[in-house]
Amino acid sequence: MRISELAQATGVPVHTLKYYLREGLLMPGEATSRTRAEYGTEHVERVRLVRALVEHGGVGIAGVRSVLEALAAPPLSRHDLLGVAACALPTPGDDGPVSDEVTALLSDLGWPVSRQAPAVRALSAAVAAAREAGVPLPASTLRRYAQAMIGVAAVDLDEASTTRTPAAAVHMVVVGTVMVDPVLVALRRVAQEAVSAERG
Amino acid sequence: MRISELAQATGVPVHTLKYYLREGLLMPGEATSRTRAEYGTEHVERVRLVRALVEHGGVGIAGVRSVLEALAAPPLSRHDLLGVAACALPTPGDDGPVSDEVTALLSDLGWPVSRQAPAVRALSAAVAAAREAGVPLPASTLRRYAQAMIGVAAVDLDEASTTRTPAAAVHMVVVGTVMVDPVLVALRRVAQEAVSAERG
Repeated sequence: MRISELAQATGVPVHTLKYYLREGLLMPGEATSRTRAEYGTEHVERVRLVRALVEHGGVGIAGVRSVLEALAAPPLSRHDLLGVAACALPTPGDDGPVSDEVTALLSDLGWPVSRQAPAVRALSAAVAAAREAGVPLPASTLRRYAQAMIGVAAVDLDEASTTRTPAAAVHMVVVGTVMVDPVLVALRRVAQEAVSAERG
Repeated sequence: MRISELAQATGVPVHTLKYYLREGLLMPGEATSRTRAEYGTEHVERVRLVRALVEHGGVGIAGVRSVLEALAAPPLSRHDLLGVAACALPTPGDDGPVSDEVTALLSDLGWPVSRQAPAVRALSAAVAAAREAGVPLPASTLRRYAQAMIGVAAVDLDEASTTRTPAAAVHMVVVGTVMVDPVLVALRRVAQEAVSAERG
C-alpha cells in the first residue's frame, strides 16, 4: 500500500507518518520509484504500536525509540523486554529520590525489584504527597496495598503472556498498563461501596 | 483567633476564606464587633476539609456542599456518609452510560452496589476506552481485577474506620481515595516488575 493508504488503515495522518519515518520510529517502505514506497502489514502494526505508546501511553519519542530498540534486539529475555517497556512509561515523580520508607517496604516485602527503578521513585513521591495531604500511610497499610497490587500485576502479566509475539507482549504491557489504570481507579470506588455496604 | 490567624493556621489566604464564608462552606465565626469575628479549632478543621476536597479531590463547590450537608445531618449511617463522599468525587466518564458488560460483571460478582453509581459509569467508560486502544478486557479478566481491588477497598475502609469522627472518616475516604490512587498506580508498576522477575 502507499503512504496515503497506510494513513487510512491506521487513522494516522500522512504528515505524522512522515514524522515517524524521519525520527526512525517507522521503518522505510520498499521504494518503488524515486518518490514512492510500498508499505505492508508490518508497517500498519508498527504505526499502531507507536501511536498507542505516544497517545495512550504518553511516552516521549526517546522512550518510543528505546522500546523499539528493545524489540529489535533478540537476546533480551521477555522479562527484560517488559522492563524496557515499563521504564519507557512516564509516571509522575519518577525522577525524584527514593525514600527510606519505600526502600524499607520493598525489603520487607522481599520483592526482587530494582531499588532505583522509575516506579520506585514515583511510589516515593506519591506516598510523600499523600502524607502532606493528611493521609499518613503507615508501613502496615502500604504493605497491604502492595499485596493487593500483586494480584493486579499477576493479571497484567497473564494478559501479556497470552500474546504470541514479544512485540505484542510489550504492546499489551505498555498500553495495558496505561489504559487499565482508569479501570482500576473506577473499580476501587465501586469496591469501596461494596465493602462498605457489606460492613453496614 | 481572627480571620488573618485562621489564614495563617491553615495556609489558605483570607480572600479564599471569605469566599468559603460567602458560599456557606465555612460556618461564620462568633462576632466580636461589627467587623470582627472570632474563629476556633472547628473552623481550622473545616477549612482543611474544604481545601482537601477542592484541591486534592478536585471536588466542585456543589460537591463540597453535599459532603458538608451529609456531615451536618446526623441520621445518616456511616455507609451513607461514605456514599455521599464518594459521589462528590468526580471521576472521568462518570456521567456516561452504564454498559451491559459492567452490569453483567457486577451481577456476576454479587456486589451490593447501586447499578447507576457514578463509579459504575466511570468503569463502563474506562473499559470501553481500553478496548478502543487495543486492550480487550474479557469478563474473566475484569473479574480478577475486581477481586484484587476488593483487597484495596478493604484497606481503604479499615483506614477510614480508624478515625474517631464521621467528619474524619469522610476526610479519609475522600482525600485518601484521591491521594492513594497515584500510590496504587506506582505500586502496580513495581509489582509488575516483581511478578515478572519471579516468573523469569
